[in-house]
Amino acid sequence: MTDRLVVIGGDAAGMSAVSQARRRRGPDDLEIVVFERGRHTSYSACGIPYLVADVVHDAEQLIARRPEVFRSRFATEVHLRHEVVDIDLDRRVVMVRDLEAGGERNEPFDHLMVATGATPVRPKLPGADADGIFGVQVLDDGVALRRRLDHTDVTRAVVVGAGYIGLEMAEALVQRGVEVTVVEQAPQPMATLDPDMGSLVADAMRRLGIVFRLGESVTGFDTAEGSVGAVITTAGTLPADLVILGLGVRPNSQLAAEAGVAVGPTGGLVTDRRMRTSTPGVWAAGDCVETFHRVSRRPVTIALGTHANKQGRVAGINIGGGYATFPGVVGTAVTKICGLEIARTGLGEAEAAAAGFATEAVVVESTTRAGYFPGAAVMQTKLIVERRSGRLLGAQIVGEENAGKRIDALAIALWNEMTVEEMTGLDLAYAPPFSPVWDPVLIAARKAAERLDGPTGLSTVEAR
Amino acid sequence: MTDRLVVIGGDAAGMSAVSQARRRRGPDDLEIVVFERGRHTSYSACGIPYLVADVVHDAEQLIARRPEVFRSRFATEVHLRHEVVDIDLDRRVVMVRDLEAGGERNEPFDHLMVATGATPVRPKLPGADADGIFGVQVLDDGVALRRRLDHTDVTRAVVVGAGYIGLEMAEALVQRGVEVTVVEQAPQPMATLDPDMGSLVADAMRRLGIVFRLGESVTGFDTAEGSVGAVITTAGTLPADLVILGLGVRPNSQLAAEAGVAVGPTGGLVTDRRMRTSTPGVWAAGDCVETFHRVSRRPVTIALGTHANKQGRVAGINIGGGYATFPGVVGTAVTKICGLEIARTGLGEAEAAAAGFATEAVVVESTTRAGYFPGAAVMQTKLIVERRSGRLLGAQIVGEENAGKRIDALAIALWNEMTVEEMTGLDLAYAPPFSPVWDPVLIAARKAAERLDGPTGLSTVEAR
Repeated sequence: MTDRLVVIGGDAAGMSAVSQARRRRGPDDLEIVVFERGRHTSYSACGIPYLVADVVHDAEQLIARRPEVFRSRFATEVHLRHEVVDIDLDRRVVMVRDLEAGGERNEPFDHLMVATGATPVRPKLPGADADGIFGVQVLDDGVALRRRLDHTDVTRAVVVGAGYIGLEMAEALVQRGVEVTVVEQAPQPMATLDPDMGSLVADAMRRLGIVFRLGESVTGFDTAEGSVGAVITTAGTLPADLVILGLGVRPNSQLAAEAGVAVGPTGGLVTDRRMRTSTPGVWAAGDCVETFHRVSRRPVTIALGTHANKQGRVAGINIGGGYATFPGVVGTAVTKICGLEIARTGLGEAEAAAAGFATEAVVVESTTRAGYFPGAAVMQTKLIVERRSGRLLGAQIVGEENAGKRIDALAIALWNEMTVEEMTGLDLAYAPPFSPVWDPVLIAARKAAERLDGPTGLSTVEAR
Repeated sequence: MTDRLVVIGGDAAGMSAVSQARRRRGPDDLEIVVFERGRHTSYSACGIPYLVADVVHDAEQLIARRPEVFRSRFATEVHLRHEVVDIDLDRRVVMVRDLEAGGERNEPFDHLMVATGATPVRPKLPGADADGIFGVQVLDDGVALRRRLDHTDVTRAVVVGAGYIGLEMAEALVQRGVEVTVVEQAPQPMATLDPDMGSLVADAMRRLGIVFRLGESVTGFDTAEGSVGAVITTAGTLPADLVILGLGVRPNSQLAAEAGVAVGPTGGLVTDRRMRTSTPGVWAAGDCVETFHRVSRRPVTIALGTHANKQGRVAGINIGGGYATFPGVVGTAVTKICGLEIARTGLGEAEAAAAGFATEAVVVESTTRAGYFPGAAVMQTKLIVERRSGRLLGAQIVGEENAGKRIDALAIALWNEMTVEEMTGLDLAYAPPFSPVWDPVLIAARKAAERLDGPTGLSTVEAR
């Protein structure tokens, strides 16, 4: 008796599940069908800003695997431009709409994998649907934006929202010769960093000519003949040929929720560690689910391809009859903006306070290589530490080349609940082209340990 | 009553101890005197190959702190070109020889810090003291070698020994336009890597024209008028204007050992975790001590500035009345040779077997950035894993730019005794300029976990 797995969404989470399920169960044992409402499978959404900047020249490069590959290698039928519009959990069918040919049909399932991703937040404001206003969530957005920049005369752009995607897009536009203004409701850009670290990023962007309008909200858009001409904010009017919405995303959980699958306080679908939803036989993974934050111990939604891939893999192994669990996240992220590498893991100061931690924080300046070695670049490392225990709760890095990926060391230390005192002893790789003799991670740990130990560093144990 | 701390050796370990001890105890409480037989304090020995290659232009750049700084900032008297030739533990004095002015004198101590470093292995072979044969242990060696290359006509060089330092020097000489042959007793270069990984390094070096003579031993040197003219090996004669000895180092423990301080099976001084030797009031740190390897659980000697600094700091804190411990090492190292970044941590396959582990090993090829991102470079990652538990025991990386420092993530995972299965869930930083969506560390962990799980990856737990 052949089981049938229906996958809703053909990107990272869905397709990782497909390959793992197929690896364990052959086509005679498990039929797999994927419905994807877009035109592509398995592409790198994170690569869109680089496509726009023309760092990556062709949208095709962002596509990891095409439907044909899933057919031939994984014996899986992928239907593009097919949208699942209803899930009937009692009858175990989904209703699918063919967006090209039209018409709807029911498709039965034994297992259902919900991998519907996230939807960009679009403000419900006058003119928000005008031509020239772009989201940057799916590859087609990136392709359309790239075409606009290649073929029309774009002089001034406004980016709404100063998170990762907003700032990456701002830089991409500057690289394309466009004047860019970033409007952000918050008093500082890059709210995923603490203000002291975020301001380093803003300063670097201003040096490239990017204008920030902070503490301003967008209230509408001026349009003429259906095209955007200006962005209206609480503080004035900003002329713009092009507007990018970088207001973040929210989990695309509505379809499953309407069918009765449980949604958590974050708006994401609730799963257990094996990626099972509240409904037997229904699995979920990727941007549409909420996940466990190992430091705050609270559910969070973080739309990142790396989590989607891991969660999809876990779901697929379990659907295939294996055993795998997703252990949660610690909020690690990295990006590169205007020559700066920016990374974080764990909790920021405000997040740690909100989670009930009493903290100390240190910021240290160091270099990415031995100071005398050519290419040694400056980097700032911030650690947030629990006051009593000395446990690392969070870390942030802003620095030049070779700074950002050092966050992984901090992420793994934090994952293992190390204290900064323990971290001072870590055996990290040293050679002049790679690090000063005290690696920046160790310097930061030392400074944090000394801070906790009191101003002289004199510990309470006396032992001459 | 003022205590007196005498420090033997004015480099990383000794001077780190000085700064920490002084931080906790003022000059009225603790007098500190340092005797250093060389001409410099606190310099980067690891930088010597780069000085020779002219990547670093001036020897002065390698000096971190001069004696004047210790006088003014740490109220510490540093006597250069003063060699301690005897330690009398009963009378609590050291006998010091002034290498410039001549003469010996006794200097009393309450605390004695032994930071005598390591001595290069010099073969006792005919002609080994000839002009043109260089060690590269102390800064003066590097300066002399650099002068030789700058001012005389060096055409052909032979490097004896294909460890880190030998290969770094081979590359430096090639960069200076010298023809280089490397003679190594072992069947492969880079014995700190497993043969499969080491051969990748050898191949890259051969492409730069470096000739390897493997499985050959040096039996002597041809000299004329006191200068070297050729290296004689078990397989022939290699003409050479210049010879570099890169045969490794051994702990300089003899002085303390003769006074009665305990030496371990490795030849290094034995200390406890606070860097106390077997003799009350006598401390030791740096290349002259043996240390605990956290994976093999055996004592090892590893001559690396990063350990010397950490151990010196720990000794200094304890001498100063604080409490600090050195937790041991996991054998992490990194270098850059002929465009390749080479790193290791933990145990290699043979080392793991010698320590009694049954292991599996995997090697995965991946890229340092998203495959489509400009600058994506190839890297090989090898993991050595305990068979039953899946615990990570060791890792090795050979790859192009941005590959090497990823060893830190593996070193910290290994430090925390993570299994490869646990590691597959690690929250590492992803963005296209920094990593594929599956970081190379995660890909390697996945492959190792799948290997342990059987050929299909089908786990024993069935849970459809």
